[in-house]
Amino acid sequence: MRAAFPSPRLRLRPPFPSRAASIFRGVFPILATPFHPDESLDLDGFRAAVRFMQRAGASGATIVGVLGESNRMTDAERAALIRTAVDAVDGAAFPICVGTSHTGTAATVALSRMAQELGASAVMVTPAKEPTPPADDALVALYSRVADACPGLPIVLQDHPASTQVHMAPRLVARIAHEVPAVACIKLESLPTPARIAALRRLWATELPPGGDCTILTGLGALYGGFDMEQGTDGFMTGFAFPEVLAAMNNAAQAGDMEHAHALYAKYLPMMVFEQQPGVAVRKQLYQLRGLISSPHVRHPGNNISPTLKAALELQVQRTFAGVDITKPLPPELFRKPV
Amino acid sequence: MRAAFPSPRLRLRPPFPSRAASIFRGVFPILATPFHPDESLDLDGFRAAVRFMQRAGASGATIVGVLGESNRMTDAERAALIRTAVDAVDGAAFPICVGTSHTGTAATVALSRMAQELGASAVMVTPAKEPTPPADDALVALYSRVADACPGLPIVLQDHPASTQVHMAPRLVARIAHEVPAVACIKLESLPTPARIAALRRLWATELPPGGDCTILTGLGALYGGFDMEQGTDGFMTGFAFPEVLAAMNNAAQAGDMEHAHALYAKYLPMMVFEQQPGVAVRKQLYQLRGLISSPHVRHPGNNISPTLKAALELQVQRTFAGVDITKPLPPELFRKPV
Amino acid sequence: MRAAFPSPRLRLRPPFPSRAASIFRGVFPILATPFHPDESLDLDGFRAAVRFMQRAGASGATIVGVLGESNRMTDAERAALIRTAVDAVDGAAFPICVGTSHTGTAATVALSRMAQELGASAVMVTPAKEPTPPADDALVALYSRVADACPGLPIVLQDHPASTQVHMAPRLVARIAHEVPAVACIKLESLPTPARIAALRRLWATELPPGGDCTILTGLGALYGGFDMEQGTDGFMTGFAFPEVLAAMNNAAQAGDMEHAHALYAKYLPMMVFEQQPGVAVRKQLYQLRGLISSPHVRHPGNNISPTLKAALELQVQRTFAGVDITKPLPPELFRKPV
Amino acid sequence: MRAAFPSPRLRLRPPFPSRAASIFRGVFPILATPFHPDESLDLDGFRAAVRFMQRAGASGATIVGVLGESNRMTDAERAALIRTAVDAVDGAAFPICVGTSHTGTAATVALSRMAQELGASAVMVTPAKEPTPPADDALVALYSRVADACPGLPIVLQDHPASTQVHMAPRLVARIAHEVPAVACIKLESLPTPARIAALRRLWATELPPGGDCTILTGLGALYGGFDMEQGTDGFMTGFAFPEVLAAMNNAAQAGDMEHAHALYAKYLPMMVFEQQPGVAVRKQLYQLRGLISSPHVRHPGNNISPTLKAALELQVQRTFAGVDITKPLPPELFRKPV
Repeated sequence: MRAAFPSPRLRLRPPFPSRAASIFRGVFPILATPFHPDESLDLDGFRAAVRFMQRAGASGATIVGVLGESNRMTDAERAALIRTAVDAVDGAAFPICVGTSHTGTAATVALSRMAQELGASAVMVTPAKEPTPPADDALVALYSRVADACPGLPIVLQDHPASTQVHMAPRLVARIAHEVPAVACIKLESLPTPARIAALRRLWATELPPGGDCTILTGLGALYGGFDMEQGTDGFMTGFAFPEVLAAMNNAAQAGDMEHAHALYAKYLPMMVFEQQPGVAVRKQLYQLRGLISSPHVRHPGNNISPTLKAALELQVQRTFAGVDITKPLPPELFRKPV
Repeated sequence: MRAAFPSPRLRLRPPFPSRAASIFRGVFPILATPFHPDESLDLDGFRAAVRFMQRAGASGATIVGVLGESNRMTDAERAALIRTAVDAVDGAAFPICVGTSHTGTAATVALSRMAQELGASAVMVTPAKEPTPPADDALVALYSRVADACPGLPIVLQDHPASTQVHMAPRLVARIAHEVPAVACIKLESLPTPARIAALRRLWATELPPGGDCTILTGLGALYGGFDMEQGTDGFMTGFAFPEVLAAMNNAAQAGDMEHAHALYAKYLPMMVFEQQPGVAVRKQLYQLRGLISSPHVRHPGNNISPTLKAALELQVQRTFAGVDITKPLPPELFRKPV
Repeated sequence: MRAAFPSPRLRLRPPFPSRAASIFRGVFPILATPFHPDESLDLDGFRAAVRFMQRAGASGATIVGVLGESNRMTDAERAALIRTAVDAVDGAAFPICVGTSHTGTAATVALSRMAQELGASAVMVTPAKEPTPPADDALVALYSRVADACPGLPIVLQDHPASTQVHMAPRLVARIAHEVPAVACIKLESLPTPARIAALRRLWATELPPGGDCTILTGLGALYGGFDMEQGTDGFMTGFAFPEVLAAMNNAAQAGDMEHAHALYAKYLPMMVFEQQPGVAVRKQLYQLRGLISSPHVRHPGNNISPTLKAALELQVQRTFAGVDITKPLPPELFRKPV
Repeated sequence: MRAAFPSPRLRLRPPFPSRAASIFRGVFPILATPFHPDESLDLDGFRAAVRFMQRAGASGATIVGVLGESNRMTDAERAALIRTAVDAVDGAAFPICVGTSHTGTAATVALSRMAQELGASAVMVTPAKEPTPPADDALVALYSRVADACPGLPIVLQDHPASTQVHMAPRLVARIAHEVPAVACIKLESLPTPARIAALRRLWATELPPGGDCTILTGLGALYGGFDMEQGTDGFMTGFAFPEVLAAMNNAAQAGDMEHAHALYAKYLPMMVFEQQPGVAVRKQLYQLRGLISSPHVRHPGNNISPTLKAALELQVQRTFAGVDITKPLPPELFRKPV
């Protein structure tokens, strides 16, 4: 075997909003989309859910994502959801990020422009697998086309191979963010996330001057959140129905108290594990238990929650939150460090 | 090993438009969607292509299908295409069938209603794979929901596992068509198509009274057309850019002259093989060579044709159609039986 | 939409070893296969690991499974592993179950016969996806052929769609176990496992006379173990490197103390979550930390553990087992209920 | 969007057996593996088939490939097939290439060493997809480990993403062949093959000095053979049951008579299209019709040919070879250029 090919080095990226100033820090819940049992949108429930997240200590919200059942909506419904969310909050204080992924780049661009025109603060884009996986250049082109069409709009690059079947090495993720400065945040959901955070940070530290990096938010229902924090995640962008827990974890981690951060993670992990079972049915049931939406209905052909899981969920909620009124934002004392 | 479970038998389906009277016979080209090099829709080219197909002897046309790049469009673009096609022809004489498949059933229903309202004569629906394959009941529900929402609209059930990853046994296809009478045609693209045609015909003949069947149209670029005809396909619904060839083949087969039908198939097979290489780039190049569209541009991230393939295609066109003006419908004498 | 097809009912299965007497109860670790850094088998380490599991309170062990890297071995290596394991223990007291899955049925049969001849107590078989998913009858045939070729050998039916891409409804699993009485246990790893346990139990209770069921063991690193126990799993067959924890959980659950069972689950869940990250590298690192094997090497092209994950793992082990000598079976007092 | 990363250039590869002297030219049939109806190997039929291929004008034969049902065999059966094939012919004159692909690299190495020790002239190796696609470096390592373990043994790199789910860009294929000089031939089955042949030739011509290339053989049942020849394929390595046809095509093409080469392709294309329907059942039926094997049985869970397809196949054989005794090598006059 001969010596390997030389590997390209990342080249200098000019100044862009620094990581410290990024809006993509803290906790961004991915909102579930409520539907009535007749499959129509429940915009009242959606508005209530968005506002609840703000009161619950989230830094912003992401809507129309994969587990927001974006793949089961018409474009008109996407617009209605964006309008409702933007209208529900003051975007300057609580940015709304909109999922605009689509199998076609031109459609991703069109959906992103629509989001920007309707007042969204950012868009989240994930690559799509054609019958064959996209070439690296096609991935760069996807993000640069969105950036060119939507001046000033930050882009969250979602790396979630479990749903996209697109596997990107850390170097490729770094390359895209480097060549498309509008990419302001990596939503990192490629396993193992802790090692990937470290790999990205290392790439940025060794190959770029200070300031050349993005923030990283991890997802996957925060299943690996305790370990993501140890590697320096900037927060969470995920749909766990108790963002207060994630905010408390992240606050502790950012304050450097990793022991407390991890203790909170461990305490709420059974609830997280239960919730991140495949599909969105458990999460919607939790939304209903929290009083946010009137029906946990999942759109066809998605599975609704079975009676078995529903009973098991209620038992786990009881175990985790005995004596707590979960229809209100969870009180801070719940997350205080024991003395 | 014990005796197998009993297998359910198909139950009687009440009278519905008989196979003989079905509109889904003959050749239905699946239209490619023309785009300008800037990725915008070329509606003029689309109108020209639809009209050309009618003049070329097609029985109708299917638009917004998989190889019409439907997965790269916004809903508004779908509407524009439907309006253009319906406007281009007289639907009574030349039905326009619209692909309305979507990963969500409610969205499939909404797109189907839109198609019906805009004057489409039929819709074509293919099931979608969620992370897990749909249960049989979910497939029946998909089609029955479309049927319920669009009274009077015939549905083409597309069975194309190569793009959907949904594998349906012939019995399941028959069950869906049986339980949802609006399903008036099977677009059969599950391999091997000749054996599947025979299996469906056999199921219908042995388990249903006369009149309980659908028409079957095969696709896949007519790659197996010669063998599909032997098993009694009612025609072709596919995007091969020379529908005159398929019409001639089908006319011969329907007239019982299978020898001539097969000779035509054999003659044009190299052209068919070339065209059905993956992607839609070759087909669009042929559309341009036939003078239908101004640009063969494929939307990002689809692949455009390479110079190598373009030159090879031109050579093959020359081989197949030397001396023929392919910018006009091919003359009938081209397909006459040698004496 | 018309009335659905009638659904077949399960028919009576004659008496077979009752669930109560089944050997497939308790905890069956799936053993990792140790390799030297030069990729050769480490049979000494393997022998040590098998014996350790017996001392650690396991009911038996499963070898040559998916996370035993069975897909990276020659048949001769499989034989060496079987011989080593059978020789390491007294099979009557500590049954060795051998994974014999293969993409071809004849090869599965041949590997199963080899396992039986070499003294294995049982085999575990998972179906394989051909280019198209197997028909139900083909799945029944797979298990019945193994049963016919290996008289008296119990079969564990592994249902793990994440690795096989074969999705089986509970009714199909029940049908296979019904028609092939040698199927004595379901290794259930199809999500959501708690609901699937309940569905199988319900099917058996409503459609079969008493005694017609199998035991169910769940896997997936026990990620959902706390919820599996609530639905009546008979134990765990999975590779978590601390089977003592699973045995303690299961003992509590079988004794009816679900509160303690769940408390143990919650306590060790961060360790379980860490370990079940994709691949087998973390598990092998734990085997090494426990003193069972000399090298955590994963065979090419599998990924070895990264320095980042290795350090994070050691920190988590420290958090979970501070002050405990994990190179010995964990002491029972670790799992005692607090008073 | 910023400027792209620099792309690495191929570096000089030292002299190796020149393309002109390569054994991988002409036609290498991939042999189907005959089984008796009881699923056991039919070694007599296999021996007869290998010898027939030599008499039929093939340059060599490849055994134990994907459509040789290698994924349904034990290692002992692989050995028996290699012994039989090597024994059936004189390897110097008629090289036997053995498929040794396996999901584990160490097993691929072991199977390759076994093949070499049993007298095989070459091995064919395809990469395997783990749950995630292999990194480029892992692919280079796969081939270099085989090369290191089997000094002097030429390796055929099979690029067949339809079965492997591993998608390699032409540059990566070239890189592997460059860094592992034992890679002496590319079996190219990545679509579109004509464009890929051209891309590889271009890479070699522009980035390597003369002599730095491999031969390219195309496969896929020669479905695209007419167009592969135009781009300079060095021949065919595929299982089409009439290698005489492919040899005649290739002889014409190598002699520069592309018109005749293409005419032969067009003439036999319906037969090729029929045969390359998914699965190996049609091919085995043809082997039986040619008198090579006593049973066309396909191993479980593969599908055997249906009566419908069997009758259709016989009709097509009649159409293509009316009046010809296909149980003997086809006579050269069949392929002579009409005057």
